[in-house]
Amino acid sequence: MEKIGIGFLGCGNIGCGVYRLLETQAGEIDKNEGVSFEVRKILVHSLDKKRPVPQELLTSCASDVLDDPEISIIMEFMNGEEPAASYMKYALENGKTVVTANKMALATHWSEILNAARAHAGGLYYEASVCGAVPIIRALTNSLQANRITSVMGIINGTTNYILSRMSTEGTSYAEVLSDAQKMGLAEPDPTADVEGHDAAYKLSILSTLAFHRHVPVEQVYTEGITAVSPEDVQLGQAFGLTIKLLGIAKNTNGKIQARVHPTFVPRNHPLASVNDAFNAVYVNGHACGEMMFYGRGAGDMPTASALVSDLIQAAKAKRHELPAVQDEVKQTDKNWQSVYFVAAKKEQVPRVMEALRSENVGIATEVKTGTNNERAAFLTTHASEAAMQRALGCVKGLDIGMIRVENMEN
Amino acid sequence: MEKIGIGFLGCGNIGCGVYRLLETQAGEIDKNEGVSFEVRKILVHSLDKKRPVPQELLTSCASDVLDDPEISIIMEFMNGEEPAASYMKYALENGKTVVTANKMALATHWSEILNAARAHAGGLYYEASVCGAVPIIRALTNSLQANRITSVMGIINGTTNYILSRMSTEGTSYAEVLSDAQKMGLAEPDPTADVEGHDAAYKLSILSTLAFHRHVPVEQVYTEGITAVSPEDVQLGQAFGLTIKLLGIAKNTNGKIQARVHPTFVPRNHPLASVNDAFNAVYVNGHACGEMMFYGRGAGDMPTASALVSDLIQAAKAKRHELPAVQDEVKQTDKNWQSVYFVAAKKEQVPRVMEALRSENVGIATEVKTGTNNERAAFLTTHASEAAMQRALGCVKGLDIGMIRVENMEN
Repeated sequence: MEKIGIGFLGCGNIGCGVYRLLETQAGEIDKNEGVSFEVRKILVHSLDKKRPVPQELLTSCASDVLDDPEISIIMEFMNGEEPAASYMKYALENGKTVVTANKMALATHWSEILNAARAHAGGLYYEASVCGAVPIIRALTNSLQANRITSVMGIINGTTNYILSRMSTEGTSYAEVLSDAQKMGLAEPDPTADVEGHDAAYKLSILSTLAFHRHVPVEQVYTEGITAVSPEDVQLGQAFGLTIKLLGIAKNTNGKIQARVHPTFVPRNHPLASVNDAFNAVYVNGHACGEMMFYGRGAGDMPTASALVSDLIQAAKAKRHELPAVQDEVKQTDKNWQSVYFVAAKKEQVPRVMEALRSENVGIATEVKTGTNNERAAFLTTHASEAAMQRALGCVKGLDIGMIRVENMEN
Repeated sequence: MEKIGIGFLGCGNIGCGVYRLLETQAGEIDKNEGVSFEVRKILVHSLDKKRPVPQELLTSCASDVLDDPEISIIMEFMNGEEPAASYMKYALENGKTVVTANKMALATHWSEILNAARAHAGGLYYEASVCGAVPIIRALTNSLQANRITSVMGIINGTTNYILSRMSTEGTSYAEVLSDAQKMGLAEPDPTADVEGHDAAYKLSILSTLAFHRHVPVEQVYTEGITAVSPEDVQLGQAFGLTIKLLGIAKNTNGKIQARVHPTFVPRNHPLASVNDAFNAVYVNGHACGEMMFYGRGAGDMPTASALVSDLIQAAKAKRHELPAVQDEVKQTDKNWQSVYFVAAKKEQVPRVMEALRSENVGIATEVKTGTNNERAAFLTTHASEAAMQRALGCVKGLDIGMIRVENMEN
């Protein structure tokens, strides 16, 4: 059987994982799938760094990979927007197929990259760009096609889920858990992209575009990180039976599209509530399929390699490459969504906060519960609009208020 | 665009759901997927029964569907082994593609049906046969191909999960919940196939065959139902932090294949433990992807129709139909698996039971806990072999012993 020539752009942990997986599983993949591969060239920054791949495959010249006529599939795991996006476009424009794990490059250059693939009938495969091994891309494109998807809600960033899980179970502060996570390699030295929600926003842009068949640009995703979440408020939420998660939430309500990333409370018995540590999960609601959840390892070299090699096999077997149908672009997402809100403040300031809410017609749905230290107290609102909530909080700006949106309350 | 002619075998709730979904989503499916369908004939038992489909499509003659040259895809939802299996083979032998929801016909005639598809290059699609809307078939065949799958564990029967969930939360007896479930339409008037584990065994045969690339015949699935599970033992298990589920468990341990369906305790914090009511979930472990879970509605007309129409779209778009690679047949599954066991007995008989276990070198791992009524008591064993366990229990045959296998204990 003829081997399909492939080239790597990048060779960090993920690239080495792909190389290893291709090597150890070559026999099984050939036997079960009828395809086999030959890695011909690997683009790296430094030729001197020791890597568990053959030295003679390495090159620091992109053209050695991109212009090799024997390479028909390019696998990209470079991280960052550029030069990854340009390389992918170039490869597609030259009739190659691209398999990528790069959510940032894909989300920020979605239309250009998709158009390049469409114009040249090239394949574009990106399962690994969202939630590592979890086949949520394939589920949306190949398994839920008969559905009108009404919502997608996901724990799509492992670092923040690890931090929030530990803050919930241990009552530790954000800064303390972050520092631990950095020591363990679960958070980057510069954690901004994760903790500010940018990484989740890229992924939500991709997921919502596929779910709704309309391009939801990443700039249209409302994004709020976890740096302001306090352990006191997390514990106060537990008193209401709530668990905190950084969720990516996309909804299609009669054509109005919401797309937002922010710390969110969900009821303790919701399937997303028990997704802990660095695990990812995406919860999907469709008009025919009902509620579904896809759970697994969202990061790590081998889980990501699992998705990349799966895409590679699909790409190699495809007689014609499928690209997602995207009808148009969402120019303006709905920023005035409805939600239940958890509101916490210093105990003695709660009456003033309630008054501000009432003046904007935001109802109070629960009793006020006081934290164990007797200093802070919290309550839940009835369903209210984000705009009313923001106006109300604007009136009590000087106070130390914790406001966290609540999803899937049964009320 | 030319419409693809399709025929239905059967038109109960699921068939009517498929018809409705095709009708309401025709525009979206055409726009997003570029295919459209025309239902040309529907095989039914009785032409007189009122159904929400056009009367003129109905026929009681199978040949009107199977031999219509304008029909290229047959959708089968007849239930039962025959004539469904023969019809599917006939259709495949005549070059048609088959989309089926029928786990029983597929599992019991796996090789014949697969061979017919292979010999005639016909498509065979069966996502709907396991776990309704949950795309576990596609996950195994199209997303986890790069993995050595080591285990598949699933809640793959909604009726028994509903019964066990209610027994767990309410302490109600099996007979009482079953009778409720029958009134609500969640259990059949003759519930045997569900409560004795046969339905789960068909599904596990299909899942394990795909996971391990070896045919695991349904006769090789060890099967034990839930009729002997007592609410006392369920509650005693809770005292050990355990939740009861009817699990289908398939493992590949260095080529030794286990496949078994039986009531199983899992730790309360395991993702499968919180899958309640009629929901299904499949937990998969692969050497690269790690742990994954797929969760959703395993039955019902629209969830099943969601999977069937998804298969229909995949079948219509395929340039070449993919069939699963199955290397050989497992002649004998491993019946002497290792497990932790929960053992309950009348309080005063526990010492005799423990003695019987010790005589077979089965260790006791926990203290003995007594139920609230002070009559029954239970403990957990260390890891032991099924054979040793059965020998030990054979020595105390007259006693009222509850033995439930425990999976995923962290010890």
